[in-house]
Amino acid sequence: MRGFIALRPYGFAIWELIQAEFNKRFKATGHSNAYFPLLIPESLLVKEAEHVEGFAPEVAWVTEGGSEKLTERLAIRPTSEAIIGPLYSQWIQSHRDLPVLINQWCNVMRWEKATRPFLRTREFLWQEGHTAHATQREAAEEAQRMLEIYREVAEDVLALAVIIGRKSESERFAGAQATYAIEALMPDGKALQAGTSHEFGQNFAQAYDIKFTDVDEQVKHAWTTSWGVSWRLIGGLIMAHGDDRGLVLPPALAPHQVVIVPILKKDDESVLPAARRLADVLAPVARVKLDDRPDQSAAWKFNEWEMRGVPLRVEIGPRDVAAASVTIARRDTLEKSTVPLASLASALPAQLEQIQRSLLARARDYLAAHTIEVSERGAFVDALKRQAGLVLAPWCERAECEADIKAETGAVTRVLAGKAAAGERCAYCGGPAKVKAFFARSY
Amino acid sequence: MRGFIALRPYGFAIWELIQAEFNKRFKATGHSNAYFPLLIPESLLVKEAEHVEGFAPEVAWVTEGGSEKLTERLAIRPTSEAIIGPLYSQWIQSHRDLPVLINQWCNVMRWEKATRPFLRTREFLWQEGHTAHATQREAAEEAQRMLEIYREVAEDVLALAVIIGRKSESERFAGAQATYAIEALMPDGKALQAGTSHEFGQNFAQAYDIKFTDVDEQVKHAWTTSWGVSWRLIGGLIMAHGDDRGLVLPPALAPHQVVIVPILKKDDESVLPAARRLADVLAPVARVKLDDRPDQSAAWKFNEWEMRGVPLRVEIGPRDVAAASVTIARRDTLEKSTVPLASLASALPAQLEQIQRSLLARARDYLAAHTIEVSERGAFVDALKRQAGLVLAPWCERAECEADIKAETGAVTRVLAGKAAAGERCAYCGGPAKVKAFFARSY
Repeated sequence: MRGFIALRPYGFAIWELIQAEFNKRFKATGHSNAYFPLLIPESLLVKEAEHVEGFAPEVAWVTEGGSEKLTERLAIRPTSEAIIGPLYSQWIQSHRDLPVLINQWCNVMRWEKATRPFLRTREFLWQEGHTAHATQREAAEEAQRMLEIYREVAEDVLALAVIIGRKSESERFAGAQATYAIEALMPDGKALQAGTSHEFGQNFAQAYDIKFTDVDEQVKHAWTTSWGVSWRLIGGLIMAHGDDRGLVLPPALAPHQVVIVPILKKDDESVLPAARRLADVLAPVARVKLDDRPDQSAAWKFNEWEMRGVPLRVEIGPRDVAAASVTIARRDTLEKSTVPLASLASALPAQLEQIQRSLLARARDYLAAHTIEVSERGAFVDALKRQAGLVLAPWCERAECEADIKAETGAVTRVLAGKAAAGERCAYCGGPAKVKAFFARSY
Repeated sequence: MRGFIALRPYGFAIWELIQAEFNKRFKATGHSNAYFPLLIPESLLVKEAEHVEGFAPEVAWVTEGGSEKLTERLAIRPTSEAIIGPLYSQWIQSHRDLPVLINQWCNVMRWEKATRPFLRTREFLWQEGHTAHATQREAAEEAQRMLEIYREVAEDVLALAVIIGRKSESERFAGAQATYAIEALMPDGKALQAGTSHEFGQNFAQAYDIKFTDVDEQVKHAWTTSWGVSWRLIGGLIMAHGDDRGLVLPPALAPHQVVIVPILKKDDESVLPAARRLADVLAPVARVKLDDRPDQSAAWKFNEWEMRGVPLRVEIGPRDVAAASVTIARRDTLEKSTVPLASLASALPAQLEQIQRSLLARARDYLAAHTIEVSERGAFVDALKRQAGLVLAPWCERAECEADIKAETGAVTRVLAGKAAAGERCAYCGGPAKVKAFFARSY
């Protein structure tokens, strides 16, 4: 079915590692996981006007249950604000009940017309955090805190270079007062939105009646946020680091960080036992896979594990055993080196760390090299049409101007990057510039 | 919405602990997690005749996507055989691709008429294992292996006493050749099916064209299995162990195994620091919660944590600090004792282990005391109508007889318990008995 993917064990293991990295950070910042219903009655979805306007065109509707027509259509959640809001309304009565800091890992559905594996699928796996606070300041801090966690995981775990900032009015989440995002740049010059964090102000609290009695005994609406990342991150990984041989996985997310490939020769009985001992020795310091399948050649296995992106390959043959050394090959640089068997375990963590850092450095170099600052219309339009990368330009911040830019170039703002200098003009329409903004075509 | 529940953080933490216990065992037996699409086109669901007949009456159908009517109805998975089958058909070509040992944690939906929190919800969280094998023997071994894991987790982790065995023809999974189950007995005398494991023979492989070239170069259909447990286990926990004060959680699944409640007195400044030190000391040996909320009284907190089923409460007041001891209270027996502060950390694991064992022993005693063996119709019908527990009786194994028993008593077989003795008669219809069977009313 178009727009649906099955995530096989190797891919799902990457997703589980991504989940673990986020869960660790969500927990450290006081959040708990929970689970909310898949289906949202239409009467709840419509309560926040902008929200339903934004999501209704993409909703998959359940209209029959068993042999009966339902009296009300039920939306498969495209996001869960509309089912969580009414529950928070029941759960929150007093300032003592706040903040509510909950995250959910689940599947959601958006009936997209154009789909693309991982990047734009009709069903996708994601996490959505939903929080409620007593004050605007706390909600604003929460939205920034989670955005910072997204940046940290993107850079330190996925080795993606990202820009970070607020979205324009046209690009923000339906119903949000402010949406913040991290965006990565892909090798084809398109941007990938990789995580978003929203401040809702009191919009959703008003729509869903989330109220609390404050310390001053006044009844007030809560301030809410939501924030999410999806398996689109896997798509970002594949595109950002992959090469002609296949995947290149950062060690932090590699299901197998090291693969040991024994090079088996006829009449040799030393290699396989040595490879097994090595796997045992390395197991405490890294996620190690010993590929001892008898039916495939070593060369076939080299290809296979390169395609699957394993960061380090250890080759061990009769001569290595005799010399008490092994050959190691880095997936990212394809460099080979010889390492004494006895020191491999102690050298491994630093090796993996270096690959991790090197991937991020490469991604940062790429991002820097493909970020172009322009202030003049010809250069602005040309860079966007050429899909040259991120185009930073002074901008008037008018939705009509953004729509015109999109019509001419296919690009929109990705994030805003701070105020324009006094007197600067919008690079596209020539009106007074309010902000600097990053523009790009995107997935 | 009827039949849907939101699982709040405390309940979800129990579910996460259950998941971790199963994942550990699934992994140790060679299984990997994966993810399959939520929606199943009707044309795929109908391919296995018995399967669709069993599940179609309970399917929630998606008929609209965005603003368009779909040309084919899409089922929200009631179980995933019908979406996994076609994928396995693509993934499996050779005997080298077998066995396929995959598990999925996900949400499923069954549009039940009568619903009950955790026990019978329209949406539920579960895991479903789906495996494919080259031989019938391997598939049969797999089904038994997973059933044994279910028994082990039920007993050693959930502290539920269970019976185990094959299901009758009427009670087996739609499309299975054999269904095996673990069943627990609830305090009201009803049985709870707590996990099932199915042998499909080659039924689904034929319906979905799952074929492989065997070592003898013959193309053969694979032998498949599936097996599942759901959040119904949480319902089983609540009913089996709970009492008038609320939950009683087995330590293995308690989000907080120990709660420390400081007893704060005016003008005392010794208790809170001592409680904090104690929390730090206990943290490495147990999941510890320090309840240092200033607004609630100690008595209120005692109630709160009893209701939430925390296995051990540690009370620490000024006199305890002075005496370098604490009072501990067991949730299961409500017994209190005094323990020297210095030895609490070393005593804790054994204490928790004893509570865990004691809950299981109590559950086993209850099961034994409420299992009644009968061979005569009057006693058989009476025991089932009284909901006296599990009723073990010789049975003819005829579906018509089981339907008659259900009509008269509301009970059906839970599992079959081996062959009947030669010459024994069915306790209900008087025909020749083939098996001993456990009967009960059930959830």
